[in-house]
Amino acid sequence: MKKKGFIITIAAPSGGGKSTILNKALTKLPQVKYSISYTTRLPRGDEKDGVDYYFVTEDEFLQKKRDGFFLEFAQVHGSWYGTSKEYVQGVLESGNHVIMDIDVQGVAQVKQQGDDIVSIFVLPPNYSVLENRLHARNTDCIAQIEQRLINSKKEIDQLNEYDYLVINDDLDKAVECVVSIITVEENRVKRYVDPIEEFYKN
Amino acid sequence: MKKKGFIITIAAPSGGGKSTILNKALTKLPQVKYSISYTTRLPRGDEKDGVDYYFVTEDEFLQKKRDGFFLEFAQVHGSWYGTSKEYVQGVLESGNHVIMDIDVQGVAQVKQQGDDIVSIFVLPPNYSVLENRLHARNTDCIAQIEQRLINSKKEIDQLNEYDYLVINDDLDKAVECVVSIITVEENRVKRYVDPIEEFYKN
Repeated sequence: MKKKGFIITIAAPSGGGKSTILNKALTKLPQVKYSISYTTRLPRGDEKDGVDYYFVTEDEFLQKKRDGFFLEFAQVHGSWYGTSKEYVQGVLESGNHVIMDIDVQGVAQVKQQGDDIVSIFVLPPNYSVLENRLHARNTDCIAQIEQRLINSKKEIDQLNEYDYLVINDDLDKAVECVVSIITVEENRVKRYVDPIEEFYKN
Repeated sequence: MKKKGFIITIAAPSGGGKSTILNKALTKLPQVKYSISYTTRLPRGDEKDGVDYYFVTEDEFLQKKRDGFFLEFAQVHGSWYGTSKEYVQGVLESGNHVIMDIDVQGVAQVKQQGDDIVSIFVLPPNYSVLENRLHARNTDCIAQIEQRLINSKKEIDQLNEYDYLVINDDLDKAVECVVSIITVEENRVKRYVDPIEEFYKN
């Protein structure tokens, strides 16, 4: 039966393992497309235009914003980030889903426009694990780790705004859980285009 | 982390395979308890009191109804059916779930009282399959089959009142889908008792 796609977002505090879970889950979900954000910040490391982000100037971004190009947008540490409305609508109409890397304000913007979104929060099993993971990365100085822990607390305080909570105790299990959530959500009655008509027609 | 249980109900038109799916799913879900209904109708075949139903007199039933004993109740073809509120609450508080065999009115009663319910509708892939399954059972005369098809239509018209739609094309897949729905629903943020407190405490 014909189904509509939906938007997915995964959030996690720094050190929560979001990127790893997201990438592993995407390899198991061919029906889920990653939405590449537009940003005004400069590329870092080996980030590529059209792969990691669409890098645009502030003038280009603000013009697109005025044109209603974005489904959601946000300014973070002085840089703009936004998601193409047209891209998302195209994927959803084809019955596939779009995964977006947005924060709780982005989720609110998407919901406000009546779009169908499933939101997942990934959390380490407890605070000590989060602390240990941040220290074990060895890429940040103590001050940066402290700042990340403060930011994490703010993110965790938003937990109740999300639909699902996945505890990332075992990475493979957490990935499997995210994959199951998305697969199960496809069976919601509201995601079928016209199930009763199709039932009688065939 | 500590979680709350929830109520589950599975509906299907006659011939939809509800009982088979329910029984197979229950063997895979030790955390799901089947709620035995109270009824005023007489036992049929080898139905046993305390196993299939609690068989009570109409006076007993109406007294319990007045006492607020039932979470939901309904009168069908002159007989009363009801679910014990105390049993359901006990199971939910233990973190397990209760599966109840109730119709769309029962679901509405449960929701009205603010209880947390996940409702699943099981449908054959199309109308011809439903017709063929009813004819293949060979237990009903044509008039009975016609009546079942009329009843089915009324039940299918209620589809939008349910959360999930499972297409019963392949029995094992349909069972797996029901099991996944229940397992995934356990990860909803609202089902955790106090996740943020537990996260920082441990």
